[in-house]
Amino acid sequence: MNPDLVSQLDPLFHPRGVAVIGASNREGNFGRLFIQSLLEMGYQHIYPVNPRGEPVLGIAGYANVMDLPQEIDLAIVATPTESAVDIVQQCAQKGIPGVVLYTSGFGEKGAEGKLQEQEMAHLARKGGTRLIGPNCQGIYCPASRLAPEPGFPKEPGPVGMISSSGFMVAFTARAGARRGVRFSKVISCGNQCDLNAADFLEYLGQDEDTKLIVAYLEEIKEGQRFFRLAREISGTKPIIIWKGGITQRGARAAASHTGALAGSRELWQALCTQAGIVSVKSAEELLDLLVAFYHLPLPKGRGVAIISGPGGPAVGATDACAEAGLHVAELSPQTRRSLGSFLPATGTSVDNPIDMGMGTMFSPQWYGEAINILTQDPSVDMLLIISPGRSDFSQSIVESVKRSGKPAALATTVLLSEEEREHLSSQGIPSYSDWRRAAMALAKLAEYADFVNGKI
Amino acid sequence: MNPDLVSQLDPLFHPRGVAVIGASNREGNFGRLFIQSLLEMGYQHIYPVNPRGEPVLGIAGYANVMDLPQEIDLAIVATPTESAVDIVQQCAQKGIPGVVLYTSGFGEKGAEGKLQEQEMAHLARKGGTRLIGPNCQGIYCPASRLAPEPGFPKEPGPVGMISSSGFMVAFTARAGARRGVRFSKVISCGNQCDLNAADFLEYLGQDEDTKLIVAYLEEIKEGQRFFRLAREISGTKPIIIWKGGITQRGARAAASHTGALAGSRELWQALCTQAGIVSVKSAEELLDLLVAFYHLPLPKGRGVAIISGPGGPAVGATDACAEAGLHVAELSPQTRRSLGSFLPATGTSVDNPIDMGMGTMFSPQWYGEAINILTQDPSVDMLLIISPGRSDFSQSIVESVKRSGKPAALATTVLLSEEEREHLSSQGIPSYSDWRRAAMALAKLAEYADFVNGKI
Repeated sequence: MNPDLVSQLDPLFHPRGVAVIGASNREGNFGRLFIQSLLEMGYQHIYPVNPRGEPVLGIAGYANVMDLPQEIDLAIVATPTESAVDIVQQCAQKGIPGVVLYTSGFGEKGAEGKLQEQEMAHLARKGGTRLIGPNCQGIYCPASRLAPEPGFPKEPGPVGMISSSGFMVAFTARAGARRGVRFSKVISCGNQCDLNAADFLEYLGQDEDTKLIVAYLEEIKEGQRFFRLAREISGTKPIIIWKGGITQRGARAAASHTGALAGSRELWQALCTQAGIVSVKSAEELLDLLVAFYHLPLPKGRGVAIISGPGGPAVGATDACAEAGLHVAELSPQTRRSLGSFLPATGTSVDNPIDMGMGTMFSPQWYGEAINILTQDPSVDMLLIISPGRSDFSQSIVESVKRSGKPAALATTVLLSEEEREHLSSQGIPSYSDWRRAAMALAKLAEYADFVNGKI
Repeated sequence: MNPDLVSQLDPLFHPRGVAVIGASNREGNFGRLFIQSLLEMGYQHIYPVNPRGEPVLGIAGYANVMDLPQEIDLAIVATPTESAVDIVQQCAQKGIPGVVLYTSGFGEKGAEGKLQEQEMAHLARKGGTRLIGPNCQGIYCPASRLAPEPGFPKEPGPVGMISSSGFMVAFTARAGARRGVRFSKVISCGNQCDLNAADFLEYLGQDEDTKLIVAYLEEIKEGQRFFRLAREISGTKPIIIWKGGITQRGARAAASHTGALAGSRELWQALCTQAGIVSVKSAEELLDLLVAFYHLPLPKGRGVAIISGPGGPAVGATDACAEAGLHVAELSPQTRRSLGSFLPATGTSVDNPIDMGMGTMFSPQWYGEAINILTQDPSVDMLLIISPGRSDFSQSIVESVKRSGKPAALATTVLLSEEEREHLSSQGIPSYSDWRRAAMALAKLAEYADFVNGKI
């Protein structure tokens, strides 16, 4: 991997100053929204630029890029499409290391826009400036107090993200935060006219603050390089990708969203498997797996023990685990005897899945006891726990799971409030509203563990 | 369909009196829980039975089934396994038309238990008594104020349900209610030793209060009869079924849960297609489709228009619709012109998917305007709407959709609170936390419409 890229991009993620070009006090002005977001994060070194050099939200403004002070490492450009090329040229002349081009109306509009993108990339490089975008929201880096929208979490964490969609950045940052997930560096990369997803992957691969990478991508430019890098990085940092525009009609939509070109589901899946990329199909699945990979240790094998109070979900979870490629563990006679020592003889089953029956309503501590016994069985590499999710259940589960050191996912029902589910996830036990989703998350974790251990 | 079955089962769903056999005041006694549930629903005619004839929760008790008054149409039996056969015999002698056998420890425990089940079914029939169970929770019928657990909704509605799992009854009734779904008659059928799922299907098929049927089933007894009935009923009442125990290992779990025998995914799917059954794979999908079929009219074809504020989800939803077998509609030039007349030229797309861009943040009424235009395009049979789901958005969407008379599903993100999502669903617009789930719900609706119209 290229260390020069790191020194080139580091200033963009840790800028001494940020210019916001095209910012005004007008209602609905997106430059102003960027400034609001930076202020909310506590970032101090903001330089608004607009034709009259007016102050924005009380911060002194500049009429011209050339008038800006020298210590500016990042310019966010939110001007009309017509002026964007000129502005990029000025930023390059000024020697600003990085430009986030929020402005849209280029490659996603057709051939002429693509030519303009090439021109901008050329102009930028001549001045040693790197471009993010156009048609993007740029950078979220809580450690540096950068955010593209208000309401982003302020605490940093180990997740890096690359996204063709600004919305997916906001979605993942906010929804992830509710489940205890925090971020290192997040890039909304838009049309990728200069810096592309491969560049950001290479950067995040070398970034010490990043331990786990997620991406929503509509186009992979420099495909060979991208997958070579992914294979290199995924051995130590899991990479979870949702590819948008994978159907013919979806690709047409992607073209008018970010100017992307098409792929195919089969090709994509084959490339991912080879590169150790964890591939997902929706925003919800991306979040499901992000939370699992964030919180859980890797399992040593594919053996799963399923623990349930109600019997119906135990059957459904068993189907889901089997169909997801997990092995529903064959428990030792000793394990079954131990379970049978405290569970009633009727309305229960000590075969795997463990059906503890209706009695759990009155004896929530059975969950903890069963987990303690099951995690000592060598055939059990991980746990899928189905619980009504009341707090008296949760405490017993959290403590026993933590003691075991084995990964566990909780499947509760939608009867559990979103708040309770978030609380459990933030305690290190990913919690899902459906046992099929929990089984899928555990299965993907096991697949990745196999990749890391060289079994795939 | 057999009208005798209706006259035989009607008393069970509208009982003049309910005996609860095995009820005591002891903490954790399940008979007492049944009585609590009946009282909570407002049911008055309860007759507790226990060895000493003690009152339960202040209601006069009886020491013996034979001492009970004549006007009892339903007995709920929650005695130990050992005494259940005798109790069933007494109920039959007494001429009670229906018994819900909550007691477990029969067929799910092996061959001996299966023999006992046969004996009980035989004893019951001799006395003209019909048995539900064993190992079941029996009946939820809000119109008659019957419920098996506390906390069930009191208002009746048009959904009938049959379930091998008592938990799935509670889950579906409670979670469904939050999305505006209400129930006619729900049966937790357990091991099905006498009355089985085919009987209840035949009953619900003839029940005027039931317009839509859902089921969670681990075993289909009398398979030929079941599928013949399903095909007959599904032409007018949609039938949504989740089959548990479909994998080999899941079937083993089902056997120890309700004594069920195995099937296979392929065979199951083929049978469902032939019978017009809407087949689902998880509790969440069951709920997703129940809400869609409950609230939405059937589409006239497979053409879908996708409307979004953010562009990333528009691409993802397009992939999801295409992969689910929907046709992403080709809009007429007139429709595009009308959309283009109020949407900005950059950062948007009037091709389907309609990407209305970031401006929707300030102009939520664009949703309503776009829906009004799109639903007049003859290529558009249904709508998939992606919205941040703030209430200012919702109002504009709800009104325009209702005016159009076309089915619409809303995909919001998990950033929308569960309460807001529930509010939208209860307004007749099913709301999903992922566009892939919304696409799946619309696709299943279109498939069912094709079946009803004889295209499948």
